[in-house]
Amino acid sequence: MVEPAIVLGTNQYGKAEVRVVKVTRDTDRHEIEDLNVTSQLRGDFAAAHLAGDNSHVVPTDTQKNTIFAFARDGVGSPEAFLLRLAEHFTSSFDWVTGGRWEAESFAWQRIVVDGAEHDHAFVRGGQEVRTAVVVADGAERHVIAGLKELTVLKTTQSGFEGYPKDRYTTLPETADRVLATDVAARWRYDGAHAGAADVDYDAVYASVRALLLEAFAARYSAALQATLFDMGRRVLEVHPEIAEIRFSMPNKHHFVVDLAPFGLDNPNEVFFAADRPYGLIEATVTREGAESPAAAWEGIAGFC
Amino acid sequence: MVEPAIVLGTNQYGKAEVRVVKVTRDTDRHEIEDLNVTSQLRGDFAAAHLAGDNSHVVPTDTQKNTIFAFARDGVGSPEAFLLRLAEHFTSSFDWVTGGRWEAESFAWQRIVVDGAEHDHAFVRGGQEVRTAVVVADGAERHVIAGLKELTVLKTTQSGFEGYPKDRYTTLPETADRVLATDVAARWRYDGAHAGAADVDYDAVYASVRALLLEAFAARYSAALQATLFDMGRRVLEVHPEIAEIRFSMPNKHHFVVDLAPFGLDNPNEVFFAADRPYGLIEATVTREGAESPAAAWEGIAGFC
Amino acid sequence: MVEPAIVLGTNQYGKAEVRVVKVTRDTDRHEIEDLNVTSQLRGDFAAAHLAGDNSHVVPTDTQKNTIFAFARDGVGSPEAFLLRLAEHFTSSFDWVTGGRWEAESFAWQRIVVDGAEHDHAFVRGGQEVRTAVVVADGAERHVIAGLKELTVLKTTQSGFEGYPKDRYTTLPETADRVLATDVAARWRYDGAHAGAADVDYDAVYASVRALLLEAFAARYSAALQATLFDMGRRVLEVHPEIAEIRFSMPNKHHFVVDLAPFGLDNPNEVFFAADRPYGLIEATVTREGAESPAAAWEGIAGFC
Amino acid sequence: MVEPAIVLGTNQYGKAEVRVVKVTRDTDRHEIEDLNVTSQLRGDFAAAHLAGDNSHVVPTDTQKNTIFAFARDGVGSPEAFLLRLAEHFTSSFDWVTGGRWEAESFAWQRIVVDGAEHDHAFVRGGQEVRTAVVVADGAERHVIAGLKELTVLKTTQSGFEGYPKDRYTTLPETADRVLATDVAARWRYDGAHAGAADVDYDAVYASVRALLLEAFAARYSAALQATLFDMGRRVLEVHPEIAEIRFSMPNKHHFVVDLAPFGLDNPNEVFFAADRPYGLIEATVTREGAESPAAAWEGIAGFC
Repeated sequence: MVEPAIVLGTNQYGKAEVRVVKVTRDTDRHEIEDLNVTSQLRGDFAAAHLAGDNSHVVPTDTQKNTIFAFARDGVGSPEAFLLRLAEHFTSSFDWVTGGRWEAESFAWQRIVVDGAEHDHAFVRGGQEVRTAVVVADGAERHVIAGLKELTVLKTTQSGFEGYPKDRYTTLPETADRVLATDVAARWRYDGAHAGAADVDYDAVYASVRALLLEAFAARYSAALQATLFDMGRRVLEVHPEIAEIRFSMPNKHHFVVDLAPFGLDNPNEVFFAADRPYGLIEATVTREGAESPAAAWEGIAGFC
Repeated sequence: MVEPAIVLGTNQYGKAEVRVVKVTRDTDRHEIEDLNVTSQLRGDFAAAHLAGDNSHVVPTDTQKNTIFAFARDGVGSPEAFLLRLAEHFTSSFDWVTGGRWEAESFAWQRIVVDGAEHDHAFVRGGQEVRTAVVVADGAERHVIAGLKELTVLKTTQSGFEGYPKDRYTTLPETADRVLATDVAARWRYDGAHAGAADVDYDAVYASVRALLLEAFAARYSAALQATLFDMGRRVLEVHPEIAEIRFSMPNKHHFVVDLAPFGLDNPNEVFFAADRPYGLIEATVTREGAESPAAAWEGIAGFC
Repeated sequence: MVEPAIVLGTNQYGKAEVRVVKVTRDTDRHEIEDLNVTSQLRGDFAAAHLAGDNSHVVPTDTQKNTIFAFARDGVGSPEAFLLRLAEHFTSSFDWVTGGRWEAESFAWQRIVVDGAEHDHAFVRGGQEVRTAVVVADGAERHVIAGLKELTVLKTTQSGFEGYPKDRYTTLPETADRVLATDVAARWRYDGAHAGAADVDYDAVYASVRALLLEAFAARYSAALQATLFDMGRRVLEVHPEIAEIRFSMPNKHHFVVDLAPFGLDNPNEVFFAADRPYGLIEATVTREGAESPAAAWEGIAGFC
Repeated sequence: MVEPAIVLGTNQYGKAEVRVVKVTRDTDRHEIEDLNVTSQLRGDFAAAHLAGDNSHVVPTDTQKNTIFAFARDGVGSPEAFLLRLAEHFTSSFDWVTGGRWEAESFAWQRIVVDGAEHDHAFVRGGQEVRTAVVVADGAERHVIAGLKELTVLKTTQSGFEGYPKDRYTTLPETADRVLATDVAARWRYDGAHAGAADVDYDAVYASVRALLLEAFAARYSAALQATLFDMGRRVLEVHPEIAEIRFSMPNKHHFVVDLAPFGLDNPNEVFFAADRPYGLIEATVTREGAESPAAAWEGIAGFC
């Protein structure tokens, strides 16, 4: 019997984490855009792997240069910027049939001096990071927006009861606990809107962020799973252009400290915030009958 | 027209990063096993998300307890330990139809005192971390072994030439550069071996690690892509039980410093080691005609 | 000649990074305090080091318990909380003659739902971390407040010119560059105010934070050194209770990208934000004739 | 009454974390040196802070260039390299009266191919990082060598008993526990050896590292304090050129997991490795009658 040959499977390559800062200074009131961009190409790169033939390998250095050059015209929303990059690379090189472009974007706020927002001095904003992914596969475009490290906490209106018990169960039930998580959410635009010119990605981002916070706060949480679904449902209710939203959220345990040995009560007032281990809740909220393109989600860690 | 209902899509949950250390002290010569284990269950958890009904939610705390309890009998290889966990959870609860178990494992070496290895004192070993993933889907088992943060460097016998040039290309060609990367590799056992009792996962790990290092060193590197393929091919040649191996490797740029302004030459002797951006090369080396089960690879970041 | 004996020098020990979260729920409008506290004792611990005699070693576990127990009564400002701990440990154990207590404190903001601040749901606030140190040495108390990771950036009104040139100088002069830094500042209360009951540490913190931002923005920066001094001077002008303020600030380089090879100009609009190396500027702003107690500053990294 | 003027206090500045890699390729058997170097100058920089006059400000960019240029001649030991830098800057600029130079150095091992060490392919070595600090103050030189992140663990022969109990004590005594720490140690060469030409810093480093490991393993540990002193004493006994050695070591708690609820015993075999909080033990081991120059230790975090 002949052994099957050893061959190249799926592959992509590019430049990761290009830290590009764009200042717009058309007027004295400057604007700032601050991104961390990754570009990865897919297509016919077999010769590079198998034969050391680089004639198809658009250098990662060139990809970096292109990111900087494109920023000269302004960035706009991260999603729109990545779509421009996707268009460029897939149209410039025959053998580049697709790719994956990713960005983190960092918020800046104007420093307030004597009650007025400063023209050109900024302070880094909230803790969370905005994320964006564009996947190109031939003519198809997938656009996944998102955020991460949005840390939220409820001091009450959260519990965990009614779960199955087995030999290894020691957790007591509770109807009043602290619930804390770092929200990581990714929402995929439906096919009609992915890459369409009339989508205001920035406005949707601001709206989704607000909806996520509101839904986290709104209701009693029977478990982080229930709160996660509340958050996702609210986003899909308001935004028809979003096909699905996925979450990966740690349950950041806050343990009530036993103060009885010290003659003190502790009516859910003093907590130990633990690092590891933590619960990890991951789920997709979607629309009935909708299909989710696997290609859009490949390579995103921790979003099942 | 009726809007489609908002529903739950794919989901999983569990306890992440359980830091379990097992000491075996049957004799005066102690053994140590040191793992970071994550357990995630899949199955019918819709009621928890939709209705706040936790009757199917095996607590993540119980999953943690189970990990510690199972360690009482010894850990063995990370892969075997995760397979035991998978078996337990899928057989103990009707509605748990699968799941994903992951481990990092940390190496310890005996401290040498007066030329002899100490019985119970250890020092943390090399820089790399061993990784393991087991995915259960009904009766099916996927086993993916791996390592990460294995940092390697060649001071010569690496170049990059013959690539396409466009408007954005400024990179000069070179036949002599430093090549450095952090090897992250994941190899999947084929169906016949995934979960089989006779696989010596520890021995395969040691062999693959050595083969990766040797193949990195062995040949002139026309690009990191070519070296990656050399590394993967060598592993598949030696290990028929491995169906495929995937890599995610940064090209950690070492730039030759221009010393001419200071009246000095620099014949590839003084380098600036840059942090960001970096090249990022990802590829699968596999066997002709083989299919790769997508379910096995879901949720692993950065391995296309 | 007799060799001098080998002896114990300065030492301290304790529990580091106790993550304590205090919720105040006297009314439906909950309050949250979130700290990372380190407690270290100084005194006569020679026997523990030299003879394995632990009769003086107040366990680090006890120090942790004490932190949680003290939080039961509320935290208040980090500085006040650390002063309470200092008082307790130095008065409870004869041989504990002093110590060092340190805290990081994390800000939370109320989630806004329908335009109103929520009673018990919070989102983590800005990026910076508030810091506090209390050093006790006999009856003496040193109080050092501070902040770190307050990232600021000016898109113009910054330059660097007129510096000395030597054989190794290649940097061109500029009168218009991006200036960015992560402000880390530590201010020491003077002897009369360190530990005094009438200091409103929270109000001073808010004021100093605002003054630092305003002074960063206000003037043309001839170098980060000049801006640092502006910032410190402004704080000392407004706050007579502050004896000195120290800064450790990276100069986070934003390099203008050369777009000329691509036929584009770049009038200070597109920048590459570099990670390493970075400039590092450290200085104290103080009052003429004042002495700075070395004991107060020991063990604080990077503040010369 | 006149307010005292606001003035500049102690200050230093420079370039931090210059990642320089030096390859020596005189023969086919290449050598590699890999450092992270920080240079900070002290002297008369008042005008830069107070008046925006940069005529004394040797640019941090020039300091970086100098590091690269000096590496052209080879690095040698980190301590010797920093001494060269100190000599250069203090002798080149009248107003530079001293400074502080620091390095981390990373170990590489040759990859073994077919049983032989490869000529030019390397793998990063053990987990720990070698550290070095040189402080120049006029003609005086302080040299502090060290290491950090050397993680060690004993599975037995460690206990903690005989400590004082108070209202807040809940810790049970034990004569058999796991002891684990990350060794961070800094040793200062005495005045006669600091900067002397005949010190073999590399040999001393290798010796001290081995002595630390041996002393950690050797004896029953009544507390981490006692083991720390054993480790320091051993180093000073063997190395007369070392004036003092300081340690900052976490007590990385490994808690015995209570398996009784699951019907299992746990004779010190299954542990939970906790992250935070941790004990923190810091002490100096020195020679009787010796003075420790405070200037040498300024700015080193966590070494009391």
